[in-house]
Amino acid sequence: VLVSLRAGIVVTGTEVLTGLIADRNGPWLSEQLRERGVQAAHIVVVGDRPADVRAALEFLARERVALIVTSGGLGPTADDLTAEVVAGFAGRELVLDAALEERIRRILERLRGRWRRPIDEEAMRAGNRKQALVPVGATVLEPVGTAPGLVVEPAPGRDVPPVLVLPGPPGELQPMWRDALTTPAMERALAGAGVVERRIVRMYGIPESELAQVLREIDADRLDLEITTCLRRGELEVATMFSPGAEKDYEKLLGGLRGRFASIIFSEDGATIDEVVAGALRAGGWTIATAESCTGGLLSARLTELPGSSDYVLGGIAVYSNAAKTALAGVDASLIERFGAVSPEVAMALADGSIARFGARVGVGITGVAGPGGGTEAKPVGTVCLSVARADGPRIDRTVALPGGRVTVRDRSTTVALHLLRRLLAG
Amino acid sequence: VLVSLRAGIVVTGTEVLTGLIADRNGPWLSEQLRERGVQAAHIVVVGDRPADVRAALEFLARERVALIVTSGGLGPTADDLTAEVVAGFAGRELVLDAALEERIRRILERLRGRWRRPIDEEAMRAGNRKQALVPVGATVLEPVGTAPGLVVEPAPGRDVPPVLVLPGPPGELQPMWRDALTTPAMERALAGAGVVERRIVRMYGIPESELAQVLREIDADRLDLEITTCLRRGELEVATMFSPGAEKDYEKLLGGLRGRFASIIFSEDGATIDEVVAGALRAGGWTIATAESCTGGLLSARLTELPGSSDYVLGGIAVYSNAAKTALAGVDASLIERFGAVSPEVAMALADGSIARFGARVGVGITGVAGPGGGTEAKPVGTVCLSVARADGPRIDRTVALPGGRVTVRDRSTTVALHLLRRLLAG
Repeated sequence: VLVSLRAGIVVTGTEVLTGLIADRNGPWLSEQLRERGVQAAHIVVVGDRPADVRAALEFLARERVALIVTSGGLGPTADDLTAEVVAGFAGRELVLDAALEERIRRILERLRGRWRRPIDEEAMRAGNRKQALVPVGATVLEPVGTAPGLVVEPAPGRDVPPVLVLPGPPGELQPMWRDALTTPAMERALAGAGVVERRIVRMYGIPESELAQVLREIDADRLDLEITTCLRRGELEVATMFSPGAEKDYEKLLGGLRGRFASIIFSEDGATIDEVVAGALRAGGWTIATAESCTGGLLSARLTELPGSSDYVLGGIAVYSNAAKTALAGVDASLIERFGAVSPEVAMALADGSIARFGARVGVGITGVAGPGGGTEAKPVGTVCLSVARADGPRIDRTVALPGGRVTVRDRSTTVALHLLRRLLAG
Repeated sequence: VLVSLRAGIVVTGTEVLTGLIADRNGPWLSEQLRERGVQAAHIVVVGDRPADVRAALEFLARERVALIVTSGGLGPTADDLTAEVVAGFAGRELVLDAALEERIRRILERLRGRWRRPIDEEAMRAGNRKQALVPVGATVLEPVGTAPGLVVEPAPGRDVPPVLVLPGPPGELQPMWRDALTTPAMERALAGAGVVERRIVRMYGIPESELAQVLREIDADRLDLEITTCLRRGELEVATMFSPGAEKDYEKLLGGLRGRFASIIFSEDGATIDEVVAGALRAGGWTIATAESCTGGLLSARLTELPGSSDYVLGGIAVYSNAAKTALAGVDASLIERFGAVSPEVAMALADGSIARFGARVGVGITGVAGPGGGTEAKPVGTVCLSVARADGPRIDRTVALPGGRVTVRDRSTTVALHLLRRLLAG
């Protein structure tokens, strides 16, 4: 087997359970565990009821996990009860750590300067004290916010796994997870976990069923690999985990994929299409500009999401109205009249216009029907015309029919544009 | 108590458990249950191992939930095993439903036209047959994709809750959930659940601690309401659930919030700031354009995300380079030289430029330091200058210091811009 240890994750919080906010901690912790050779067996999301949190812990103990990680429920108020429930679970008394109370007090002192209203001193002191209650024998993780984390090992004779207790905000949880890994208590918990390699290959332009068929043909089941395939945002991702000894098997898989899919593999090192295109722009000393209709600026927003993108992105124009297409992107009004605003001709004019207006060496034009309105029989919702062009001549023009609603069509359009850019820049 | 029934949700799939894709079904189902007076007690995410799925079901049965809903694991391949595991859990034999097999076969026939490669006929027939295996006595929900759903009631004498089995893709799960609600089996499962009202108030511009203090002052704990407060994307959200009889209590809460926070409540009906601003633009017959630097088009993308936004959005310019700020948005180069590209003066010039270039009645300018590079002592990362202006004179200019990394700073900048727009349009 690839992983030798299993862990459980308990995500607490009524906001998460009721769908008000999306849980980011469960998947993040699962990935972190994985990289350390520990498989998350279950992620349990529970509300702020003590009995439910305890039930989740007991369930995971029965499943014989080697470690439980909790997120949330460490705030200063009475309904933040994770430390107390975990103490009970581990058979440990909860006692005040006076030195910790003082450290939290100093953090609160620093923070209070930022608050505008008079502070309820008594409530603050009570919260401070509550956050300094620690199960006997637990390892304290210093707060990144105001809440300390804990590694709680069970009392002698109590047959339950150790629990790593972390706060809910990802900005606190993530650095404190890293701190936790350096503690002797966590080293004890993770002793025996093997090292696991994880590689990701990304490809674009085939259905998942075709990949499945090729995996069968190259007999991937008989390799000592754990392969997960996943379609997201129109791209196909092959994530493979293996123990260091199985490197040769991975080479076999990779060779098989390259043999069948050479032209559509765009990443073998986990890089996203955004990073691949950014790397190509940077490597070639290109500058880029965009002119977008249906995507309304999404592509330029996506191109500028990466740090340092000002080295190659000059800017973009979102031309939603036809008048703006003409006035700002220089699209000939007669083109719009003859072919319609959603047409290959207008997409090409947009790409050329973005090059001309910004003085860019590469330009992108996008125009389409994002819906829900505006579709016709000839150009139904999801019809998107794209054009990517180099100032020195070469270009690719493409009209696609994208599935899904407005948000999906717009998002997918930017992905198609990035893949066309990749091909254009590859020559 | 507000809700009389509790339910459990089991989300299956190794991609979800390992964090490769984010689970959208758990939170969605939780909200749907809530609206029907059923509280999700636990959401359990498990991989594709039969023993783990069974363990999750047994755990929820021990917690005495009235219903379990599962998502995923209904595909045609061997590792899709939810139907089989649920059958075992319910004490029901799995038998072939020949009529269902034929209906799925017809769906597959329609789909095969879309595939490019020759199809493995044998694998397809096997998959078709597997998906038509149904626990004895279960209610079949017709497929939206190729996978049927199931409502599985336990065999006589078996003391476990009924299980609603749904496929994993949200586009299939959501309509099939609605279909399921109309079946007698689900009506039996949900009998006794009360009706629950849910209202959301959104406000902007105070810290969560201040809201907590006001809730204490108006003695919200003594009202017959379930109140959840949540900070997201810089906005504070108060979600309240109550049974129809407690409408008066909700009025009391709402009155208290209005009394303290009148000027900062921007939504009492669940509308987002995007919808509020769109409504104000539409109501006033305004047209809008943007000129963005650090956000690179994110604001124009956000403004055009709502259907029908072409009625009021003319377009936007993303001016990443200084040359583009001057050439495309008409920002005087001497302004940039004197005050720097990130300055209130340049933000104002961008807003004015967007109005002039697009002939818009309202314009927005944004320039800032999104990071990670580019910060200085005077203008650290997170410094963002915004300007919203009406062509006929009134304007609001604001410089803010936003927390977080590049992605957060950019996202938060668009939220600040929308709130400034709301104030400008309110007069």
